[in-house]
Amino acid sequence: MSESLKKKIRDIPDFPKPGIIFRDISTLMKDRGAFREVLTILHDQYRDRAIDTVCGIEARGFIFGAALADRLHCGFVPARKAGKLPAGTIAEEYQLEYGTAKLELHTDAVGPGDNVLVVDDLLATGGTVAAACRLIEQLGATVFGVAIIVELVDLKGREKLNGYDVWSLITYKGA
Amino acid sequence: MSESLKKKIRDIPDFPKPGIIFRDISTLMKDRGAFREVLTILHDQYRDRAIDTVCGIEARGFIFGAALADRLHCGFVPARKAGKLPAGTIAEEYQLEYGTAKLELHTDAVGPGDNVLVVDDLLATGGTVAAACRLIEQLGATVFGVAIIVELVDLKGREKLNGYDVWSLITYKGA
Repeated sequence: MSESLKKKIRDIPDFPKPGIIFRDISTLMKDRGAFREVLTILHDQYRDRAIDTVCGIEARGFIFGAALADRLHCGFVPARKAGKLPAGTIAEEYQLEYGTAKLELHTDAVGPGDNVLVVDDLLATGGTVAAACRLIEQLGATVFGVAIIVELVDLKGREKLNGYDVWSLITYKGA
Repeated sequence: MSESLKKKIRDIPDFPKPGIIFRDISTLMKDRGAFREVLTILHDQYRDRAIDTVCGIEARGFIFGAALADRLHCGFVPARKAGKLPAGTIAEEYQLEYGTAKLELHTDAVGPGDNVLVVDDLLATGGTVAAACRLIEQLGATVFGVAIIVELVDLKGREKLNGYDVWSLITYKGA
């Protein structure tokens, strides 16, 4: 894990609600050196792995996902919240703290033979990322792996991603 | 304008509502050659222009904005819908067909002396992009220009962006 990049992340107490410390990567992204360094590390991690497509999860997953797709010379497909994608979609539900939400993928986003890397900024309880992986597999494609910028280890998101190759850049343990 | 890239865009009739043709760039982005070509054109357009920061507008503006920021060796800042940014923000209202919405920027996203390029996927009536430009200027930074992937010319978004250097890759005129 990169300690110097971790220092670029800003802690926001009590966001989005009391008792939660939000790990704000906007301070990392606006720093041109740090932003570039993250992409270089991601690129080194996934180059020459025959990845066809990067799937970024709405909305912050689009940021590192799209830039990595460009570096890897891949296509980019967005996994979006319900109702945002205009053409035919498939959907997967995932758990929120109270209730459920849906993640969607265009039915033609990926297909059999495609080697797909899932990218999101945050791995917390893992529900959203697991939904993205299921969508990709439903369309007959292969999930090569999952790339995460910030992993909140205590929330055990990796347990929901058993069987996938999950890689994270920066980890937080404890409060 | 690139006719070959325009052919990669899919028309979705009656989305998000009857009578509207949605120009769906997801088919362009998932095509690795086309995605790369768009970024190369954007890069050629804005390289060596001393841009410090790319501001991408939520959510599709993050995709080309972040990849372009990486190519230009810039920082990336997101302009987001109300309530999404965790730290101190400034906000600007913009008109929707019925009512208004708010766009926000972190108060430390940009500052005096920063040369900022605004990126969004779509220029329609121009309200969102104009709000992003006002936010950047409120923080004392300079809007170098506005880069758009798809411009719907008949909706006259450029009229709301008077005084800014607006560039678009692909244009649609008429129905």
